[in-house]
Amino acid sequence: MAKPKKTPRPKAQTPKGFRDYFGTDVTDRAEMLQTIAGVYHRYGFDALESSAVETVEALGKFLPDVDRPNEGVFAWQEEDGDWLALRYDMTAPLARVYAQHRNDLPNPYRRYTMGPVWRNEKPGPGRFRQFYQCDADTVGTASMAADAEICAMLSDTLEAVGIQRGDYVIRINNRKVLNGVMEVAGLAGDDKEAERGIVLRAIDKLDRLGPEGVRALLGEGRKDESGDFTKGAGLGDAEAETIMGFTDAKRDTGPHTVARLRELVHGSDIGAKGVAELEEIAALLDAAGYGPDRIVIDPSVVRGLGYYTGPVYEAELTFDVQNEKGQTVQFGSVAGGGRYDDLVKRFTGQEVPATGVSIGVDRLLAALRATKRIGTTEQGPVVVTVMDRDRMADYQAMVAELRSAGIRAEVYLGNPKNFGNQLKYADKRNAPIAIIEGGDEKDRGVVQIKDLYLGAKIAETATHEEWAENPSQFEVPRDQMRAKVQEILNQ
Amino acid sequence: MAKPKKTPRPKAQTPKGFRDYFGTDVTDRAEMLQTIAGVYHRYGFDALESSAVETVEALGKFLPDVDRPNEGVFAWQEEDGDWLALRYDMTAPLARVYAQHRNDLPNPYRRYTMGPVWRNEKPGPGRFRQFYQCDADTVGTASMAADAEICAMLSDTLEAVGIQRGDYVIRINNRKVLNGVMEVAGLAGDDKEAERGIVLRAIDKLDRLGPEGVRALLGEGRKDESGDFTKGAGLGDAEAETIMGFTDAKRDTGPHTVARLRELVHGSDIGAKGVAELEEIAALLDAAGYGPDRIVIDPSVVRGLGYYTGPVYEAELTFDVQNEKGQTVQFGSVAGGGRYDDLVKRFTGQEVPATGVSIGVDRLLAALRATKRIGTTEQGPVVVTVMDRDRMADYQAMVAELRSAGIRAEVYLGNPKNFGNQLKYADKRNAPIAIIEGGDEKDRGVVQIKDLYLGAKIAETATHEEWAENPSQFEVPRDQMRAKVQEILNQ
Repeated sequence: MAKPKKTPRPKAQTPKGFRDYFGTDVTDRAEMLQTIAGVYHRYGFDALESSAVETVEALGKFLPDVDRPNEGVFAWQEEDGDWLALRYDMTAPLARVYAQHRNDLPNPYRRYTMGPVWRNEKPGPGRFRQFYQCDADTVGTASMAADAEICAMLSDTLEAVGIQRGDYVIRINNRKVLNGVMEVAGLAGDDKEAERGIVLRAIDKLDRLGPEGVRALLGEGRKDESGDFTKGAGLGDAEAETIMGFTDAKRDTGPHTVARLRELVHGSDIGAKGVAELEEIAALLDAAGYGPDRIVIDPSVVRGLGYYTGPVYEAELTFDVQNEKGQTVQFGSVAGGGRYDDLVKRFTGQEVPATGVSIGVDRLLAALRATKRIGTTEQGPVVVTVMDRDRMADYQAMVAELRSAGIRAEVYLGNPKNFGNQLKYADKRNAPIAIIEGGDEKDRGVVQIKDLYLGAKIAETATHEEWAENPSQFEVPRDQMRAKVQEILNQ
Repeated sequence: MAKPKKTPRPKAQTPKGFRDYFGTDVTDRAEMLQTIAGVYHRYGFDALESSAVETVEALGKFLPDVDRPNEGVFAWQEEDGDWLALRYDMTAPLARVYAQHRNDLPNPYRRYTMGPVWRNEKPGPGRFRQFYQCDADTVGTASMAADAEICAMLSDTLEAVGIQRGDYVIRINNRKVLNGVMEVAGLAGDDKEAERGIVLRAIDKLDRLGPEGVRALLGEGRKDESGDFTKGAGLGDAEAETIMGFTDAKRDTGPHTVARLRELVHGSDIGAKGVAELEEIAALLDAAGYGPDRIVIDPSVVRGLGYYTGPVYEAELTFDVQNEKGQTVQFGSVAGGGRYDDLVKRFTGQEVPATGVSIGVDRLLAALRATKRIGTTEQGPVVVTVMDRDRMADYQAMVAELRSAGIRAEVYLGNPKNFGNQLKYADKRNAPIAIIEGGDEKDRGVVQIKDLYLGAKIAETATHEEWAENPSQFEVPRDQMRAKVQEILNQ
């Protein structure tokens, strides 16, 4: 008889491009999101958690910032033939939810949402296929007050999570101004869509390529360091200057910047409309007390996404960090958004104006860690060691007593035979204290308390005498254990 | 030229079996989970958030409680041929994570996790394909102290979220005792697996079928009301009595129950081992102060899942609620779990003992609402109305002032032309207060405050005089607006 084939063991591996989060990576993020939700709530935004799964039809089968349609999502076919997919952002589901429930929702509808999204991209270093987004949007109003409010809320949010005023700036621009500038530069009309796309992407790369690089892309094109050639928009010198003038239009005050933009879009109706919108937002923010130390008009912000139709905004952290090459760089963008008026129309046929912002959750958390606003290691639990495995009930009673006082505590549950392993475990747990009660201690009604943080400090620096004294381990009566532990933890 | 075909509009619909959560459905759950995480943390459990996506290989391609393999998960194929799937529970991913990271994790590893899971089941009324789970498990120890600890933690958790002592009970049983009873009833051995399965499922249905129904399933079989016949285990009378005696073995105290179980498993080694485990857990819980008012030994608990190997436990809410038919019933189970020693072995070949509990998040939330521990409607924001659209900046300044005092507030952002619509909006938002500042008020330096809750009360009960007086709307100087709003909200 043939031997039955053994199934090979499955590999214990996260799928490529996915990752697991442990301990403080989970709890720090949860705490940050909770703080953000508190600010959003104060601004009158309501929570929404839409289904993680959407019909491909409702998602629109494409990612807004991916060139190739039909790609970018994880999708599968149902038995009844329908295709379902994991959401790739929070905006497409919002459009679906709003279209579906518009009769029951307040109008305008302010909502926030936070959760994972999924992108079916080729995994690469630092490129993940599941990540968190945290969005706030106002649907159903064309008022610039909605855009102004979201910028103010973004400012409050950054300060609430721990970014100091002065360490961030929120920049506002307007797509209509850019469209006006394009018009002045001769790029209006349906037949110039490709060129407008090139211009948009070129300006978006200003930080990375510098003015020279952008200038090249506005003209014939640009050869990069590797020798690869990127075709340009083919603008003449005067037209390219108009565009470059736009990226460079920021002046010392908002009104001066607005005045400069008005010059640049002279003759374009859409441009004039954009400038008026920027002025209106600036006035509203000014009245609410959000000055240029927090929010500025900056024409260099374009935001990549094609669907923006009016104001666009971006939050940048301005403090320095070391990048992976050891260079000092500004931390950069942590949030962005803008006005998009066409998304709901796909479902209902009616144009529904909307504006919203998305916070890059992982980036913002990294920023808080970079500025030491939050630590990366957490104090572990008090570990009650097991000296006598038959007295587990005594040790359980100890942790129950500590926990009832709100102290994080646990009994060692591994094999207690080797005491050294118990201390190694406590060390791995980053435990501040170990409790020891052997038979001798039990008889005498005492416990040993080992201050592990102090012990580690002494081990680093102690003289022979200090070492012999060993002040990090001492005995207390059993009924004083809780008070003494509390005292050490409060130090 | 043929007219280009118009793409039909996508339907704005949640996919079948999925749902969206709004407002307090999101925030109440988040708050409850945060409280639970606090208890778990105090017990020394660390947070884990594993990837929502796993390889089908790692998941094992099957749901533990679905008979048909290869079903029950949402899966898709990658370009490189690998199959990926959404997790269907939190236990399979834990086994993968533990096998993958075991050299870096503390051993034993206590972890909690909370998040959505997905089941590819036929959607039906009240049956959803995405729902929340909240699990805590201890991996890497065979100690009964781990099981006892999780039962104590479950008790603390229920009380922390607002279930009163006396309104719940945690029941503990042991699979080994059941196996011992099966052995005594002649159902040991590989060739009796089918019969054991029938017995297990029959006992699990004790609540629903009653002793008569279970008794029938232990013998020849049972015909239900619709006339459908379910084949039984074919046990003789004496053997069936042994099993029935087991389901009925609960006595007035833990020690008495244990003594009764010891009689029932007489002659079975595995049964004796199970009884000893139960005794050990009971002793540990007793020492930690968890008496029978919270946790009891109850042989009627079997838990459906095939993978449990030792202690099993279940939390039941004992207060009455009305079911959908208007009948008064006990609320029932909200959490359950047990010991499973084989899951990690699939990956590593080594047996790794583990035990853990899963809370049914939606059920527990429903229970808190049923007992009015949490409300279902939320106070909305203060709504500042727009009487003069050119003075939006004034209104924005008002909400900014209110928010900076921690008051939830928003400006009406819809079309302000029809003032009635603004009040309807405030009503839909469940706003406690509306603020009104027309040109006249502005000139006189005052605002109107409309107490909407009081107004609604008056509208219900007022006499003509009270109505005419209208104490729910009054004027205050603009600089006293915040204080007055605060005063009303504090009432």
